[in-house]
Amino acid sequence: MRSLLISKALFIALHLGGCKMEMKTLAQERSKAEFDVEAMKVVWAGGEASLRLNQRMAELVANDPEFQKDSRVMQTRSELLKDTFRKAAHAWELINKLHFTEEEARCLRKHIDQPSYADLHWGVFIPAIKGQATDAQQKKWLPLAYSQAIIGCYAQTELGHGSNVQRLETTATFEPSTDGFIVNTPTIAATKWWPGGLGKVSTHAIVHARLLTNGKDYGIHAFIVQIRSLEDHQPLPGITVADIGTKFGSRAYNSVDNGLLRFNNVHIPRENMLMRLATVTKEGKYVHSNVPTQLAYGAMVNVRKSIVMDASYSLARAVTIAVRYSAVRRQFGVQDGQPEMQVLDYMTQQSRLFPLLATAYAYRFLGQWMSSLYSDTMACFENNDFSTLPEVHACTAGLKSIATSTTADGIEECRKLCGGHGYLTSSGLPDLFAVYVPSCTYEGDNVILLLQVARYLMKTLKFLGSGKEPSGTAAYLSNVTELVSKNCEVAKESDWISPKTLRYAFEARSARLALKCATQIAAASTQDEGFSEASCELLGASRAHCELIIVTRFMGALEREIPGRGVKNQLQILCNIYALSLVTTRAGDFLMTGYLSPEQVELAKSQLRDLFKKVRHNAVSLVDAFDYTDFYLGSSLGRYDGNVYESLYNEALKDPTNASAVTEGYTEFIRPILKQQLGTSMSRL
Amino acid sequence: MRSLLISKALFIALHLGGCKMEMKTLAQERSKAEFDVEAMKVVWAGGEASLRLNQRMAELVANDPEFQKDSRVMQTRSELLKDTFRKAAHAWELINKLHFTEEEARCLRKHIDQPSYADLHWGVFIPAIKGQATDAQQKKWLPLAYSQAIIGCYAQTELGHGSNVQRLETTATFEPSTDGFIVNTPTIAATKWWPGGLGKVSTHAIVHARLLTNGKDYGIHAFIVQIRSLEDHQPLPGITVADIGTKFGSRAYNSVDNGLLRFNNVHIPRENMLMRLATVTKEGKYVHSNVPTQLAYGAMVNVRKSIVMDASYSLARAVTIAVRYSAVRRQFGVQDGQPEMQVLDYMTQQSRLFPLLATAYAYRFLGQWMSSLYSDTMACFENNDFSTLPEVHACTAGLKSIATSTTADGIEECRKLCGGHGYLTSSGLPDLFAVYVPSCTYEGDNVILLLQVARYLMKTLKFLGSGKEPSGTAAYLSNVTELVSKNCEVAKESDWISPKTLRYAFEARSARLALKCATQIAAASTQDEGFSEASCELLGASRAHCELIIVTRFMGALEREIPGRGVKNQLQILCNIYALSLVTTRAGDFLMTGYLSPEQVELAKSQLRDLFKKVRHNAVSLVDAFDYTDFYLGSSLGRYDGNVYESLYNEALKDPTNASAVTEGYTEFIRPILKQQLGTSMSRL
Repeated sequence: MRSLLISKALFIALHLGGCKMEMKTLAQERSKAEFDVEAMKVVWAGGEASLRLNQRMAELVANDPEFQKDSRVMQTRSELLKDTFRKAAHAWELINKLHFTEEEARCLRKHIDQPSYADLHWGVFIPAIKGQATDAQQKKWLPLAYSQAIIGCYAQTELGHGSNVQRLETTATFEPSTDGFIVNTPTIAATKWWPGGLGKVSTHAIVHARLLTNGKDYGIHAFIVQIRSLEDHQPLPGITVADIGTKFGSRAYNSVDNGLLRFNNVHIPRENMLMRLATVTKEGKYVHSNVPTQLAYGAMVNVRKSIVMDASYSLARAVTIAVRYSAVRRQFGVQDGQPEMQVLDYMTQQSRLFPLLATAYAYRFLGQWMSSLYSDTMACFENNDFSTLPEVHACTAGLKSIATSTTADGIEECRKLCGGHGYLTSSGLPDLFAVYVPSCTYEGDNVILLLQVARYLMKTLKFLGSGKEPSGTAAYLSNVTELVSKNCEVAKESDWISPKTLRYAFEARSARLALKCATQIAAASTQDEGFSEASCELLGASRAHCELIIVTRFMGALEREIPGRGVKNQLQILCNIYALSLVTTRAGDFLMTGYLSPEQVELAKSQLRDLFKKVRHNAVSLVDAFDYTDFYLGSSLGRYDGNVYESLYNEALKDPTNASAVTEGYTEFIRPILKQQLGTSMSRL
Repeated sequence: MRSLLISKALFIALHLGGCKMEMKTLAQERSKAEFDVEAMKVVWAGGEASLRLNQRMAELVANDPEFQKDSRVMQTRSELLKDTFRKAAHAWELINKLHFTEEEARCLRKHIDQPSYADLHWGVFIPAIKGQATDAQQKKWLPLAYSQAIIGCYAQTELGHGSNVQRLETTATFEPSTDGFIVNTPTIAATKWWPGGLGKVSTHAIVHARLLTNGKDYGIHAFIVQIRSLEDHQPLPGITVADIGTKFGSRAYNSVDNGLLRFNNVHIPRENMLMRLATVTKEGKYVHSNVPTQLAYGAMVNVRKSIVMDASYSLARAVTIAVRYSAVRRQFGVQDGQPEMQVLDYMTQQSRLFPLLATAYAYRFLGQWMSSLYSDTMACFENNDFSTLPEVHACTAGLKSIATSTTADGIEECRKLCGGHGYLTSSGLPDLFAVYVPSCTYEGDNVILLLQVARYLMKTLKFLGSGKEPSGTAAYLSNVTELVSKNCEVAKESDWISPKTLRYAFEARSARLALKCATQIAAASTQDEGFSEASCELLGASRAHCELIIVTRFMGALEREIPGRGVKNQLQILCNIYALSLVTTRAGDFLMTGYLSPEQVELAKSQLRDLFKKVRHNAVSLVDAFDYTDFYLGSSLGRYDGNVYESLYNEALKDPTNASAVTEGYTEFIRPILKQQLGTSMSRL
């Protein structure tokens, strides 16, 4: 310990000496902001009320010792789970004591920043009951769920089937003699696998199973199944339930008990079938209800909106760390005696980082727009108008896919932009990546979702001119003839920063790629074969369609008044960076379709470089506007004050392996080597 | 436990029932191979002897209970370190007992598959002594190091400086009165940070410090410093040493004690300066030796070769898992009653996976070529011929950068290609990614390395025609006039599979991008400013140059005879896939420079689709040829027998959280919620 004490004394000396260039640097960066950061915080949060709520919860969590993070310490899985259960229980106590609304409770859980079974209970189990249960069923189950007298999960995916829900193998066979269903797991591949909260905590599961009655298979339906005793938490007879083991990262989703579940002749009462859309009568007759099946898709739109919102938050978090650290970090570039150049001043750093900063903002506005799309859609549904559903379904599927893929890659890019130190857990980035990546798979695999968009695009093109005109985000396709014939007219750099020019370019790219696919498919011997052969190109067309939507939604958000000095101007710069960075990274698309010439792409590149210069002095303030607390960020590199090196150092010293100067295992495994006693001492081990 | 027992019985029943479509599927895949897998194994291993050595070590490790992997269990960091020390000690005992050569020992350590301090001692500390110490110094230190009477690490990077070695801040001030150096750490940022093996194990460190003598700063030099007592392992006076804490992944490099190190007036004898290139006399005079400084670069070439070899092994490992699982996994695509389609049959899967399969092979041949490049370079050096150094330095820097970036992304892509199950630790993929990614940073940050290539390319173009003709991998640049004027002549799909056509296309792309950058820089007000403004384009030019080298080295390797039925044919297909997948993914480059027309890119795409069909039936056998054992792969998804679902299930049940049916923490944190006793019981916790 002696040596650690020396270092502490040294630190104090250095600290008093005031050698904190890093901290001065960030203060200087902030003084250069050309906009009102507080006003931007309101824009980012989506309003004053939302900003205050966030700040209140952030403070509450950061000041409560029960929620302290020891996230840089490797725990065993059991320790981590127990720690998570403790925090969830404490949160529940607070929620009750302080009479939190559902929104407040959700915000609190977000700030605890440690996923748990509670996220699934509140975020999936309860919404599923609301969406799929009859009113009478809701009356029975919701009070139990709201009070957490039962804790639930959503057991859909199986070992052998994720995306192809229709081929799930679990069976629920109606048995008239007991007026109930017998649930079974016929094969290993039919084992329920992945549901969060299932492995160790849930007492109940919404189980998706193949409904069999009177010898007929009616396909996949949902049932509520109690799986654990409410008295002693033991699995009920016929139930096999366990945790599926560890996952990516040292923490990430390891704090969630994703589970496996098997049924051996488990009997459930008939009324445990969720019967909003269809029922089975006492006699075993299958009857559709008069509720339109399309209603189920409304929930899907809402979930996808949340995923896009989360994408913006997660990307913003990574970008905050990378921007602040890039401003503090200096390397190369200046003569002896002078401080080196800030890494943020390198064009190679800017060209990777600023588009991600712009993307975080783009997704924020996209999420806000998807909120209103959801409200509009639900309003139509209530009037029994389902005409917008295909378009809304396709567009939200694609936006989920693009936003999550880009965010996952973007977080890893931010980690790389922090150099070697980004590899440390104390940078906050490794676990941010590990906890984010599953969003590329859950709620629809991203590739499969893009293929759904492609099917919609192909169908839309097919019916053009037949009276079925495309609407909403696909409306531009009715203009396809012009879009495929008129080429871009950009002749100088500044031509590129016109919203009209940009929108048209993205429309032309999307329409041309889609049309090319349609032509390729039409030339194939069958449509299925054509679709399969063209599937890579179809992914490209879908991506183009979605990126067009994101660009236009960002532009659309800037059409209104936005208060605050310089706020709108910064957002306009970011919007142009977002759009032009896509023009340059997807240059292949624009050139392949002949819409742009190489010279026009070059003009976009140099316009982009100019925009980078404009955003450079505002970069630190633009991430400040995300309003992340140091507690929430959990990053030595992303600290608000810029004191990164001392923070890295102090975090390292906290590692339990540093509790003693001589390591555990020295006597048994290191000393015998150094003392050349291996032959003798080792054999005694 | 009751429920788990039920499930075991069920398994046995299912097993005896023989419902293992997954296993049959892989057997069928293997029966379709159009080449001799055993012969391919020899090619991949680089010869019979190498193959046998690998197989011998793989078997030795797999059968030794001391080396068993419990890699799916989360341990505390201290447990993991101790486990690693135990394995390293056991390995050292074996190495001595079985009288292994250095090559055998290295191969053994590789198969243990758990990085440790020993990798740094043998792989960095000893080579550094060989490279930088005088003969007399080697005589003193090497026997100690070889017997591990001392254990060493390489302490170069500091908290504040990684890439910019010349700005390291640690000082070594010569003190004539004691005939030694006083080593100091003047600031927090000067703390040595990252060296593997430093944190908990090493007794000695090679420390890079600023040499000061007679009031003059002679820049960075290397010194051997003892940091821990050889008696009790305590840090020596004036030394602060500790572990820097946890890193990415649940295991990965957490088994290595990367460390921090600070010096407070630490005295070392003068002869501990590594004096091969320069010495300090008793009087404090700094004297260059007559050893050419260029010799130091030889070691760098060798290290980069090893990194490229490792890239091929790591990518091959990920590809093995993804190919086998994609063959076994079925989803969608066929009518009721029939088995679903193998995921490997989807074009979207093939287009992402097969280029990575081809890339693994490409890097293998690249690594082999870099071995001979190293020998050739050393032979030149021995004749005091350093003329090839700039070209060799640039090319190996770039190849390290491209190979590691592509491999890191490729491993993550393979994880995504395995869908949700790829997120499980038992897939083997998360930790493979976490353990691989630092290679993008160590031994040179990948972006900085590409900028070094760019400097070389710009210099080469500048001196064209001046008599200084480019040689080696840059020789094509002397043909730049033709390369920028003659466009591609491909007129039909099959034109693309000519080596000459492909090579010329890559030469043209590289030459054109380089020339464009040179023109852009020449137009800038200063060369530095031009270089900085053009840096993103320069990265593109460097990438093009390196990819050209990789393509031509793959082709070059196929010019010789390759024994074994169908082996060469498969490799030719893979080589074309590698090259054409680059043509299509880098289409933007080819179109921007005007070398290809959109139609020609389309032809490349459809040729590529044809090649995918050719490789499809050989894919499983092509990964079998990598010859990874199940033990080494450590992947439920990548098992040789294809029995993935049962394996996933069994691995899950082994998780310590499944030791009891009722979870730890139930009584304290879950029961009170369910029993609605939170207000009372929680407050008692």
